[in-house]
Amino acid sequence: MPTITFKPSNITIDVPTGTSLPEAARLAGLEIESPCGENGTCGNCVVRIVAGEVDSDSLGLLSPRAVKDGYALACKTRVSESPLTIEVPEQIDYEGGKFIDTYEDTSLLHYELFPENYQFDPLSVKCFLTVSKPQLEDGLSDVDRITRSLELNFGKIQFTYALSVIRKAADALRAEDGKVTVTLIKEPNRCHVIDIEPADHTTKHFGIAVDVGTTTVAVQLIALPGAEILSTRTDYNEQIRCGLDVISRINYARQAVHLDELRECVLNTINRLITLATESHNVKHDNIYSAVISGNTTMVHLLLGLKPEYIRLEPYSPTVHKTPFFTAEEIGLDIHPQAAIYISPGIGSYVGGDITSGILCTDLVADSEEIKLFLDIGTNGELVIGNGSFLMACACSAGPAFEGGGIEHGMRAAIGAIERVEIDAETGAPSYFTIGNVPPKAVCGSGMISLLANLFLTGWIDAAGKLNRTKNSPFIQINGRHAQFIIVPAEESGTGKAIVIGEVDIANIIRAKAAIYSACSLMLARLGLEFADITKVYIAGGFGRFLDLDKARIIGMIPDLPREKFKYIGNSSLKGAYMVLVSQEHRQQQIESARRMTYMELNTDPSYMDQYTGALFLPHTDPERFSSVHAAMRIKNNNRLQKKRRID
Amino acid sequence: MPTITFKPSNITIDVPTGTSLPEAARLAGLEIESPCGENGTCGNCVVRIVAGEVDSDSLGLLSPRAVKDGYALACKTRVSESPLTIEVPEQIDYEGGKFIDTYEDTSLLHYELFPENYQFDPLSVKCFLTVSKPQLEDGLSDVDRITRSLELNFGKIQFTYALSVIRKAADALRAEDGKVTVTLIKEPNRCHVIDIEPADHTTKHFGIAVDVGTTTVAVQLIALPGAEILSTRTDYNEQIRCGLDVISRINYARQAVHLDELRECVLNTINRLITLATESHNVKHDNIYSAVISGNTTMVHLLLGLKPEYIRLEPYSPTVHKTPFFTAEEIGLDIHPQAAIYISPGIGSYVGGDITSGILCTDLVADSEEIKLFLDIGTNGELVIGNGSFLMACACSAGPAFEGGGIEHGMRAAIGAIERVEIDAETGAPSYFTIGNVPPKAVCGSGMISLLANLFLTGWIDAAGKLNRTKNSPFIQINGRHAQFIIVPAEESGTGKAIVIGEVDIANIIRAKAAIYSACSLMLARLGLEFADITKVYIAGGFGRFLDLDKARIIGMIPDLPREKFKYIGNSSLKGAYMVLVSQEHRQQQIESARRMTYMELNTDPSYMDQYTGALFLPHTDPERFSSVHAAMRIKNNNRLQKKRRID
Repeated sequence: MPTITFKPSNITIDVPTGTSLPEAARLAGLEIESPCGENGTCGNCVVRIVAGEVDSDSLGLLSPRAVKDGYALACKTRVSESPLTIEVPEQIDYEGGKFIDTYEDTSLLHYELFPENYQFDPLSVKCFLTVSKPQLEDGLSDVDRITRSLELNFGKIQFTYALSVIRKAADALRAEDGKVTVTLIKEPNRCHVIDIEPADHTTKHFGIAVDVGTTTVAVQLIALPGAEILSTRTDYNEQIRCGLDVISRINYARQAVHLDELRECVLNTINRLITLATESHNVKHDNIYSAVISGNTTMVHLLLGLKPEYIRLEPYSPTVHKTPFFTAEEIGLDIHPQAAIYISPGIGSYVGGDITSGILCTDLVADSEEIKLFLDIGTNGELVIGNGSFLMACACSAGPAFEGGGIEHGMRAAIGAIERVEIDAETGAPSYFTIGNVPPKAVCGSGMISLLANLFLTGWIDAAGKLNRTKNSPFIQINGRHAQFIIVPAEESGTGKAIVIGEVDIANIIRAKAAIYSACSLMLARLGLEFADITKVYIAGGFGRFLDLDKARIIGMIPDLPREKFKYIGNSSLKGAYMVLVSQEHRQQQIESARRMTYMELNTDPSYMDQYTGALFLPHTDPERFSSVHAAMRIKNNNRLQKKRRID
Repeated sequence: MPTITFKPSNITIDVPTGTSLPEAARLAGLEIESPCGENGTCGNCVVRIVAGEVDSDSLGLLSPRAVKDGYALACKTRVSESPLTIEVPEQIDYEGGKFIDTYEDTSLLHYELFPENYQFDPLSVKCFLTVSKPQLEDGLSDVDRITRSLELNFGKIQFTYALSVIRKAADALRAEDGKVTVTLIKEPNRCHVIDIEPADHTTKHFGIAVDVGTTTVAVQLIALPGAEILSTRTDYNEQIRCGLDVISRINYARQAVHLDELRECVLNTINRLITLATESHNVKHDNIYSAVISGNTTMVHLLLGLKPEYIRLEPYSPTVHKTPFFTAEEIGLDIHPQAAIYISPGIGSYVGGDITSGILCTDLVADSEEIKLFLDIGTNGELVIGNGSFLMACACSAGPAFEGGGIEHGMRAAIGAIERVEIDAETGAPSYFTIGNVPPKAVCGSGMISLLANLFLTGWIDAAGKLNRTKNSPFIQINGRHAQFIIVPAEESGTGKAIVIGEVDIANIIRAKAAIYSACSLMLARLGLEFADITKVYIAGGFGRFLDLDKARIIGMIPDLPREKFKYIGNSSLKGAYMVLVSQEHRQQQIESARRMTYMELNTDPSYMDQYTGALFLPHTDPERFSSVHAAMRIKNNNRLQKKRRID
């Protein structure tokens, strides 16, 4: 087996001939990231062959000069029979797992989601019973007597028991004279008993709500039955190392071993977040008896170990929309092994349980004729439009930019993230606001939107997203054909490096916002509606506490409607999961709206590309669509000119 | 750690001070059997300390002479700090696992259990479907489309899917153009899908019926849905090494590690029998999708890993009578991991699922006023009496004698078992009939009954079971206070040793039959009934093909009623399990009769001991109860005397 040496770390490993370079790196404990899913398209995994021969399919994908200099795409390159020395360029590390996120999204609290004195009715129930003693000749087994006690509390319904409960029952009943705490799951046709403990432990009763996003995973710990949110923890989805968006992940999953790896990645992320969420409150994992998981269709497939390939291939048919209850043990969640796992139902390949959860936080399904729009902006953008009579959904691929993915100095909304940037019109000098008031590390979604809008309003970028090279500013660095804007100089930064945003990053953000706007626009057109018909727009996404909706409108991400029609509702997938966890009424409502919702496929619509191209400007190529933005800019420019004249 | 040397094998092992001798033997790969469950009562585990010191609590349990000679009960003896040499006396091996039993119980075949053209309706169903192709924008997932196809076959009921099926669905549907075979379990409120395969595999569909007895385990392989019995395999329950009867096993199970051991023992036995039953028919374990298990309450508890202790302690409350469906994976059965395991419901600590299965083979629950008696004779004897209006059950402890346990030359009804013995009145010469026509190995239950009845009828044993010492016979050997009857001389025997029955064995058999008869008698008395009120008696038990009911009556095992009132139905627990496996109607009938059946506790009845003592004679101390037997003996004696006179 040839020996491979990785530079600059000088780690060596012997691998069989034919091993791919990313695989060899993994075996050596290193990582070569391939956001495109080892598809040879993103170029992120480029390495330099310092010495030795390789077997590479990537040479036609690189410039002749790069090939001459020894560069190759690792994902398309295999080890041959000779020893090898490979230089792996330093990459921007993702934040995943690198710091503990104590920031909590408080943009909508549970007292806003439920009316006062709401009767919570969680999925799992823990109740304290006094079970009658065994009697000679009454013919009742231990389990029969537990059932009798339960019937007094819940009526004559079907009770079933997990084998582990049957195993514990005899001793539990006899330890404290029949006083036991029984934990059960209220399923539609039965109550399933999953634990029994001697004495009263009803206060040790917790559930978790989980949002599995393509880029970010969030776990919320909830004390039941009071429905109190104890803590929320978020982190990057560890799957990021296998691809940045769902299509890359689906490509990556084509090998069965990779499908397993993706499953393990997301489980690791969730289980790590469960540990973080519980340890500060001294909650035992075994006292978590229920979980609601919301995620897009691909994320749910990967979590369950389902082959996602057919999601990507026409006719885009996923394996499952609505799953049965699973146990934590089956899925691999590190909570009570018999805990009930409910997965929010999806309705299409690109409209998943994150959306049926999300609309629970809105009044889209209220009994009203008013048409409302729900916009969930993540790596995939999903839109739902509807009222009491109809519900229509569609999806678009926005990419991970607003969650910090694919942006050199991007990060998700966590401590250290710049969430707002103001720009001085004259000098271009930025002033920034950071989550947690710590030295900044990078820019999150709301920060990018704020930065772009303000650069655009002040004329430091043009409608195409190019930095202004005609005026001199110490904050703009020009390097050949590329220019970048310096938000934070190295000496102020939390990382010791300057925090910048380049024109490549700006183009990424513009593509993301264009994908969302054009999907909105196309869906309305297909429904024969106009933006003006919409009475309310709910914006969801993990942008941070303060998404400035005016700024989002200025860059053309959201439609040009009056300010009061918008509401930012934060991570609605997580909030919806929480609502389902603590209320059977909302679980039924979710199932019902999933049943009612129609999925509209936009990707196959030939006019989508026209709509998208038109939206690749700030705010849009068609000024009519954003008349309020243009009016504001005219006013701002006039003011500036007048101010300038006065100074002159 | 002191070194222990076991004689005569000379195997040595180092064990920590304090280790019990049976444990030390196990660690050395040897076995010291303790049928009483290491309780210090049976004396079976006696060993001799040849050299070294031990720490023993058993000295008061042995005669002073035995103690002086170095004997000790292994179960009550622990290793001290000195090296030790122990002599383990050679023991009679149980047959378990020693030979393959190709004998099949054919006393009641499936065509006798079901009317002609009966519509079988098994627990598991395998059906071939053509599932529609995925369509753009029809909004159906793969699983949704399978459900639609199933609804066409089964109507609009709830379908749920095992995670393993969801994982296989996408590829299975696409492999053969939507042509798939789906396997599902018909539960009361839903159909649970447990497998999906591309193409038509409906013929590869099997189930197993299992009877878990205290002494013997039987497994039957059935081809579904035709309900054809392919093979039946029986063997000793491997748990025998931990105790011969249920009380010994319950005692043994008091340590958690022993409870695990008992569970593993019975699983090993069942799984070994599954392999034997399948290999001759080339059936894959994964094509077995359902199992029905019948066993007494203790056996079911031990199989499920439930602490059986409370079965033995007043008020004799078991943990569970009726269990939910389990999966094979949960239980540990080596068939399809998602196969449905249905356990026949029990009704009391000593009347279990073997009885609710057993009465399915009778017309006890027929809509009739005629009173019928069902008698299941195993290590425990169970009785059910009833008609269309009432069902009453009770139990007694008969011991394993009729299954060959506790009898020096006893064995279960398998190849090589002597199943009938005739006796020449003049000389006492035996003639025997062996199952499989091979050299005999030992005597099974029906052979013992036949032997005892014929020895008694010919005057070679008296009513107390003592061999006749006044007449000389080469077949009776007297050794001090003990005598034994030689059935097979060493040169004719399949084992190379003479097959004999001693007075100790005879006393064991008499105790077994007395337990059964007295329980019958007491239950009738408690119900205000007499034997004459009974119109039919069903006798169940694994005696072999030909239980001679006249002989059973002669020894007083069964009541003195006309021959035509009796029917021998063989292993009815196994047959009932088979009926439940292939017919939902019978499963419902079983649940219904378990609900109707009342359990009568006889052990706590003070008059039980009187009844039992009265029955410890052949046929009984009260000649009135067996007038037909005494009449037959008078006739036989007269004939003999007349014959003798003629000769004289």
